[in-house]
Amino acid sequence: MKTEIIAESGKQELFIHRVFDAPRELVYKAFSDPDILLKFFAPKGILMKFDHHDYRTGGSYRYTHYDAEGVVLCIFNGVIHEMASPERIVLTSELEDQSILGRVVLEIYEFTELNGNRTKLTIQTVCRSVEDRDLMANSGMDSGVISIFNNLDELLLTEYESK
Amino acid sequence: MKTEIIAESGKQELFIHRVFDAPRELVYKAFSDPDILLKFFAPKGILMKFDHHDYRTGGSYRYTHYDAEGVVLCIFNGVIHEMASPERIVLTSELEDQSILGRVVLEIYEFTELNGNRTKLTIQTVCRSVEDRDLMANSGMDSGVISIFNNLDELLLTEYESK
Repeated sequence: MKTEIIAESGKQELFIHRVFDAPRELVYKAFSDPDILLKFFAPKGILMKFDHHDYRTGGSYRYTHYDAEGVVLCIFNGVIHEMASPERIVLTSELEDQSILGRVVLEIYEFTELNGNRTKLTIQTVCRSVEDRDLMANSGMDSGVISIFNNLDELLLTEYESK
Repeated sequence: MKTEIIAESGKQELFIHRVFDAPRELVYKAFSDPDILLKFFAPKGILMKFDHHDYRTGGSYRYTHYDAEGVVLCIFNGVIHEMASPERIVLTSELEDQSILGRVVLEIYEFTELNGNRTKLTIQTVCRSVEDRDLMANSGMDSGVISIFNNLDELLLTEYESK
């Protein structure tokens, strides 16, 4: 499956498109259940831990990514504006990094049913400025995003493995 | 005091600028305390009630505006990404209206100290699209925003009245 990342020049938003070979309910659940997120929402070789999670409309989350030696790579936090199963998740996300504080983004996940029991995921990321968007688009995020989606492909094959 | 609303053509954001003749702590508190918000955060003649409020980082809110006859005019809800007293409030906001569902916005309130014990408030509203932004900018919001800020001017004169 191919991941498409579209960052139109001069805009303060970015779109990610990806098709998964699984029904919408399963794909939606993967992005809304912290126990499942832990299994795929980090690039290969990186460990994810939640500091707290409350995946519901009005909830919030904070998680940390660690490398193989246990060194903190990054921390993200945000609030969850809407969880509309199985169609849409709307949340904020901010990288906790002193050098770029305040670069919060609004993210909208849309899950669309395709024929053949497949699901299209579109993530719209809206930034505070074109500069923020460019910084994100040029951060090497694509390899991380592709790795995360590939992890999920594997997980969906076995319906979340040990679940 | 003059309210400035800047909606640059083709952008998906909008800026509101307003100076208040009061120290930053007082202005920040007015926008972060539900008991004070109830006293000014609706245009003149409109009653505001909270369905729930939890003004803190990771919190959420929902409020309704009523006309003099008690008819519901509008309902807003959102989550609070950050309350960084006395500098910044970051939240989402969505008008609950079946005809325009999904037009959530990200709002950043920045409070800047000016000399003479005055405070500049800048509100950046980031929309999901240029269309959403234009809809908001052309909704007649300006008269409502100006009325709300004038209410707050009066309230600041007496330090929130009965508080």
